Amino acid sequence: QSLNDLFPSLAARRRELHRYPETGWTEFRTASLAIRHAQSLGYAVTMGKDAVKRSAMMGVPDGTTLTRQMERAISQGADPELVALMDGGMTGFWADLDCGDGPALALRFDMDANDITESQDPQHRPQKEGFASQNDGAMHACGHDGHMAVGLALVELLAKHKNALRGRIRLIFQPAEEGVRGAMAMAEAGAVDGVDTLLGFHIGFHANKPGMLICGTREFMATSKADIVFQGKSAHACAAPEEGKNALLAACSATLNMHAIPRSGKGDSRITVGKLIGGEGRNVIPSRAALVLETRGATSEVDEFMLSEVRRIAKAAADMWQCSCHITMAGGTKGGESSPKLAAIVAETAREMPCFTNIIPTQAFGASEDFAHFMSLVQQQGGMGCYMQVGASLASGHHTDHFDFDETVLQQALELLARVVWRLNGRYPTPKA
Amino acid sequence: QSLNDLFPSLAARRRELHRYPETGWTEFRTASLAIRHAQSLGYAVTMGKDAVKRSAMMGVPDGTTLTRQMERAISQGADPELVALMDGGMTGFWADLDCGDGPALALRFDMDANDITESQDPQHRPQKEGFASQNDGAMHACGHDGHMAVGLALVELLAKHKNALRGRIRLIFQPAEEGVRGAMAMAEAGAVDGVDTLLGFHIGFHANKPGMLICGTREFMATSKADIVFQGKSAHACAAPEEGKNALLAACSATLNMHAIPRSGKGDSRITVGKLIGGEGRNVIPSRAALVLETRGATSEVDEFMLSEVRRIAKAAADMWQCSCHITMAGGTKGGESSPKLAAIVAETAREMPCFTNIIPTQAFGASEDFAHFMSLVQQQGGMGCYMQVGASLASGHHTDHFDFDETVLQQALELLARVVWRLNGRYPTPKA
Amino acid sequence: QSLNDLFPSLAARRRELHRYPETGWTEFRTASLAIRHAQSLGYAVTMGKDAVKRSAMMGVPDGTTLTRQMERAISQGADPELVALMDGGMTGFWADLDCGDGPALALRFDMDANDITESQDPQHRPQKEGFASQNDGAMHACGHDGHMAVGLALVELLAKHKNALRGRIRLIFQPAEEGVRGAMAMAEAGAVDGVDTLLGFHIGFHANKPGMLICGTREFMATSKADIVFQGKSAHACAAPEEGKNALLAACSATLNMHAIPRSGKGDSRITVGKLIGGEGRNVIPSRAALVLETRGATSEVDEFMLSEVRRIAKAAADMWQCSCHITMAGGTKGGESSPKLAAIVAETAREMPCFTNIIPTQAFGASEDFAHFMSLVQQQGGMGCYMQVGASLASGHHTDHFDFDETVLQQALELLARVVWRLNGRYPTPKA
Amino acid sequence: QSLNDLFPSLAARRRELHRYPETGWTEFRTASLAIRHAQSLGYAVTMGKDAVKRSAMMGVPDGTTLTRQMERAISQGADPELVALMDGGMTGFWADLDCGDGPALALRFDMDANDITESQDPQHRPQKEGFASQNDGAMHACGHDGHMAVGLALVELLAKHKNALRGRIRLIFQPAEEGVRGAMAMAEAGAVDGVDTLLGFHIGFHANKPGMLICGTREFMATSKADIVFQGKSAHACAAPEEGKNALLAACSATLNMHAIPRSGKGDSRITVGKLIGGEGRNVIPSRAALVLETRGATSEVDEFMLSEVRRIAKAAADMWQCSCHITMAGGTKGGESSPKLAAIVAETAREMPCFTNIIPTQAFGASEDFAHFMSLVQQQGGMGCYMQVGASLASGHHTDHFDFDETVLQQALELLARVVWRLNGRYPTPKA
Repeated sequence: QSLNDLFPSLAARRRELHRYPETGWTEFRTASLAIRHAQSLGYAVTMGKDAVKRSAMMGVPDGTTLTRQMERAISQGADPELVALMDGGMTGFWADLDCGDGPALALRFDMDANDITESQDPQHRPQKEGFASQNDGAMHACGHDGHMAVGLALVELLAKHKNALRGRIRLIFQPAEEGVRGAMAMAEAGAVDGVDTLLGFHIGFHANKPGMLICGTREFMATSKADIVFQGKSAHACAAPEEGKNALLAACSATLNMHAIPRSGKGDSRITVGKLIGGEGRNVIPSRAALVLETRGATSEVDEFMLSEVRRIAKAAADMWQCSCHITMAGGTKGGESSPKLAAIVAETAREMPCFTNIIPTQAFGASEDFAHFMSLVQQQGGMGCYMQVGASLASGHHTDHFDFDETVLQQALELLARVVWRLNGRYPTPKA
Repeated sequence: QSLNDLFPSLAARRRELHRYPETGWTEFRTASLAIRHAQSLGYAVTMGKDAVKRSAMMGVPDGTTLTRQMERAISQGADPELVALMDGGMTGFWADLDCGDGPALALRFDMDANDITESQDPQHRPQKEGFASQNDGAMHACGHDGHMAVGLALVELLAKHKNALRGRIRLIFQPAEEGVRGAMAMAEAGAVDGVDTLLGFHIGFHANKPGMLICGTREFMATSKADIVFQGKSAHACAAPEEGKNALLAACSATLNMHAIPRSGKGDSRITVGKLIGGEGRNVIPSRAALVLETRGATSEVDEFMLSEVRRIAKAAADMWQCSCHITMAGGTKGGESSPKLAAIVAETAREMPCFTNIIPTQAFGASEDFAHFMSLVQQQGGMGCYMQVGASLASGHHTDHFDFDETVLQQALELLARVVWRLNGRYPTPKA
Repeated sequence: QSLNDLFPSLAARRRELHRYPETGWTEFRTASLAIRHAQSLGYAVTMGKDAVKRSAMMGVPDGTTLTRQMERAISQGADPELVALMDGGMTGFWADLDCGDGPALALRFDMDANDITESQDPQHRPQKEGFASQNDGAMHACGHDGHMAVGLALVELLAKHKNALRGRIRLIFQPAEEGVRGAMAMAEAGAVDGVDTLLGFHIGFHANKPGMLICGTREFMATSKADIVFQGKSAHACAAPEEGKNALLAACSATLNMHAIPRSGKGDSRITVGKLIGGEGRNVIPSRAALVLETRGATSEVDEFMLSEVRRIAKAAADMWQCSCHITMAGGTKGGESSPKLAAIVAETAREMPCFTNIIPTQAFGASEDFAHFMSLVQQQGGMGCYMQVGASLASGHHTDHFDFDETVLQQALELLARVVWRLNGRYPTPKA
Repeated sequence: QSLNDLFPSLAARRRELHRYPETGWTEFRTASLAIRHAQSLGYAVTMGKDAVKRSAMMGVPDGTTLTRQMERAISQGADPELVALMDGGMTGFWADLDCGDGPALALRFDMDANDITESQDPQHRPQKEGFASQNDGAMHACGHDGHMAVGLALVELLAKHKNALRGRIRLIFQPAEEGVRGAMAMAEAGAVDGVDTLLGFHIGFHANKPGMLICGTREFMATSKADIVFQGKSAHACAAPEEGKNALLAACSATLNMHAIPRSGKGDSRITVGKLIGGEGRNVIPSRAALVLETRGATSEVDEFMLSEVRRIAKAAADMWQCSCHITMAGGTKGGESSPKLAAIVAETAREMPCFTNIIPTQAFGASEDFAHFMSLVQQQGGMGCYMQVGASLASGHHTDHFDFDETVLQQALELLARVVWRLNGRYPTPKA
């Protein structure tokens, strides 16, 4: 089986996944099919509570939602037994291929869809060609369906050519990349322990033209997502305002002061209270107010500074108005940089492929991706990581309801990954395309 | 027909009204039945756009809601022709009885229910005795059903004894007392023009025991209810926060600064931002935020000061964050004091009734009631006004879902009003009870 | 010796005191002369640390200032031995006259001047007639010189007529009434322990016309004066703003939120941050900021609520910006009301004096005076208190540099006090004027 | 005359200038001597109002201070005639040497001292060797005395070798670099009009070891310095707080909201309110409050964004509390980057000098210098600019009272500048050292 044999299946697989999008922590069907696929090809799969540390899961939907989505997954073809093992939203897994002695190589694929309702526009290709989302309120609007199609083909390719490979090769399938929630819980379960080299990629993004390839993405911003609830005490606003504990004033004071956290001399930062909902009625001292916020930092250190400031300000604002305050983390990832040496290997490899007419060695991301969380940990243990952006023409921007991409990119991405795997962990040179 | 004859009907009427509660500006059924009643007894009724000035109506439900409630009213027995005349929520009306020469006397009755779902507790008397609310989300939890029962009985009594009376007697039936929205719009349509004496009453409130009577309520607080919307511009919180116009920061700054409006040396005041809803998502600069607030003042002047401060602060907070700001009045009333001379007449009258064992000449209200709006205008044109609180034992506090009252109070209130009417506008002494 | 004999000395004494004004806690000369006067007439004097509790003294000048003022006092005729006993600013004292069995009566006189430089205007009577202030930056601009003149005459009168009196009569001479600092420290030393009746008076104020007498002042506002210092850490505003602890943001946040403390349903309140000084330089994160503030309450309870809110908000604002915060009380007094029964006795007494042509039984003060502190304590132990305002024509308002009053008031005040003392503690009727 | 001949005079000149430090806009003596020096050597000097645009001068001392410093300058040897021409603080000037056809080259030297009192420590070399500051409160603590010594030597060198040079050579002597106030006013008078190449340098700074040379400084931060005064209306804090217009609340609200100006996606920024002084007394509604602040931006565009936000927020905060608000600019400069091509020429030149053992082609400044203001304008008109940092061992950090530097740097700087001038504008190769 050569790469060429796999090409036709790529678009088909992507479209099948596109029809059944599942949002963060509910990728029951997607994971179930991928696990069966890997197991059938001889991979050792680690899944469920062994692959996702429950206490580190952030932004998990409530039990009712999870149950409903588990039922939907089964009705759409998921294996009920596997789904049961993922109960609680533990949909991440990894598949290991033992190719004997040699370095440990891992590749990361993200599985989740967006909380977006796909466009009904009859000109929108998924509508026109019949593969639009069947799941209300969910849509693959960021290309993770494409990432998964490439991942499933790679599962097949590597298994078939196992004898030509060496070392341990791990394919990590991550839930909840949107909201940067999935990597941390898988990392804490050991997903990248002992990994020497980590690869990841994205279709499009800054590489928004065919033929473009950004080899080593730099400047992933670290980010933290937090939800804060202030709880005070209501009172009649006219008769006895002094008996209230005003949670809304706590929230307003917290919001203003959080935005006044100083800029850091150590790197760029961000703070945004994106939502505030507070109070019960016009003539009642507000007893409850909730903030939805995020911080960012050019480095993990800067983001940690921002988050620790946010925590202290929230606590103090609560004290100021005699309220309690409860902070829940809803997401977060470290920042980071692709390893230059590994990016150079990618670039060298790409130069062998005529389809890449615009190879950019390195470019700043200026946003957050929890691939960076895995990558930072790999680099901390002495390894290397690299995140590529593979060029594609896009029908509309990421995260919009008209998003779609030219599926040619799938072949290019698959071939690029395969060639890089062979360079790093092949016993012989790159397989023929 | 004597008062005694009317007593049995009071509880029955109250219970019938209790079954069909209608909230502010949707009292289509209540008003329709009351109008037919008054017309059938010879009153000249002023209603619809003649009785309620549309441009002065505040806090009116949206068109869909109004339409639905009109249909409900008709299905529950309202006269479709009258309902059509009340389109837009103009449910207030007044009924005039011309008794020849003499002073102009008016009495005010409020018709609206609360936005409360009545308790399902089988021990709650309206449930036990089968007169609980049939209208979801609406309940007579403040006793206006009782006020109306007294008003309808009085309509009957006065008509029967017209020959014993003199002057012009006007019964004002007001919508939307809750939220203090109804009086201003009826006043602007002329409800109290030329009125010499104005009477109003409430069951319970500070008179929360049987036998209590507070004759002249003092210290109605003036109040203003306002809704404020800040409109800015969203932007990506990481990529380009500087392109946003942050409506949430405008709202938070407004809220904090409004609460910092100085206390007034001219009298007590209040300011409460009771609700704040702002923002769209965690990583989006908030483009919209809305405040729900009220001010109060010991006098109309103090409340006007508070409201003008609120307006300026809102405008400035919007400017501060390059947002626009739109203020809508949702309610409001003047403050005031019952006229001591009229309160004394009430007290003197009450002393003739053995049922009143605890007659309190005057007491501070410390809250707002838009009866005060009518009363202030009457006093400004040289007349007198008085607001009584007639004692009753209550099953639970006003505005709670277990609210209920001992219906004996209805007889006492009816008799008291009748006796005061006779003292003021009777040709002969008080009718026999 | 009759009252008439004392009249000529009143103006002379007042003018002598006017020449040597001493501000709060530095009344060394004033107190020294008054103590010698009382001791020479047989009073038992309690002074120094026995009369003023050091730990309860608020707003005391620094040591250098105290030393300088002690030297000045001695150079202006104070007794060095007595001055030494008052070291540290403990200038308050009381003089007891034991008249045998009978109730304990106390009268309070305040000794301090204002931090005002007296007008140099040659038309200003103290300049024209040669009794203007000799002490730079200090001036009797509130009439306490007159109060003292009356007090010293009363010391003499009572001693001469001791046999006509009964009970224990205590004359309390209080420092630092301005800034309401003196009463609390004397009360804690026992100044009003066991006192049954307490009298105090003021020249002018609301009684700003000759012939007026306000017998029982109502509605003294309780007040608390506090100084708050926030201490953070400076840092370079460009290179490393994140290393600073911004004391100015703590102070600004505290100020805004303090002004947002809710109005109380229990009575009128005030909060004013009157001064804020913060920061070191344009490009340095501010490491220090100081607030000067006061709260007020219609009752002591309301003021205590305000102060406890201020304390909590200050502490929380410091936490919010990782600063420390130090609160120093700079003054304070309870609120209160004159006892109606005692005010009635004053009114009855005044009616015997033809000079009072406008006797007002009771009037609201709407300001703070720490006489109320003494009075509240007396009332708590079951006694009565009353504060009179004795009418005088004033050259200019209190606390202005042209302040002066018609000295006729001194005779009227002395006579009124004497008559009230005789009514309360006389063995025989009022002495002849 | 060779460079070697000039070396001995460098330290002597620097020490003479060190004895008579003059702070921003008061460099009357420094400028006067330098002007006479340049004129005597044949330069055409532009000075006074021709060299400094009065309306663009920021942060100018008051008239009394200027007069006093003019008198001091004269008493310390300044030419009274020249001083008179600099009245108002217009101490900047430029000296032109016309060397015939060829490009226009300019060099910038800064003249001002710091508002620092020099250390009295006998071990501090200026004390030990007798050249410490004679002017109270002023000290050359940033090395501008050294810059001037080099400038004066260069004046001499260029004049002597005029025949070996071509083009127009302009030496710009700038006042008030501290606080970034001087460049803008000279630029508006035409200081860099038509200039093709601009050079500037600093002793020490990031080049804090001997032998270091930073050739092309990058990332000058743009900055704006502003003073804001809020003016409201005072009122008695207890009697009539509602009559006040609270300037302190305006200032606090402005401060908090200014610090909440969003981070920019276009580059790093800063905002610091470094000082706030507000209010008059504890019980007075504050009628006045003043802010001292600065903004910074990685680019001029970012700083302009920050300043425009500050202006709008200040205006809105004033409106919020019915105050007026007056903004005065106290300093400011554009940001910028040295031209890479010119930096490369400097680096190439430096490699000819064995004294430079650590040549750094380019380094970020991360601070503000108004050389960047001149440089930006030169670059905008198509020219090039470069700012060097010449290494020296420092006794203590810049802007400290123990600052001093190893004077060997003066020879190195002079030689470097001379060699670069010859490379750019020499008719023949570099002069012999």
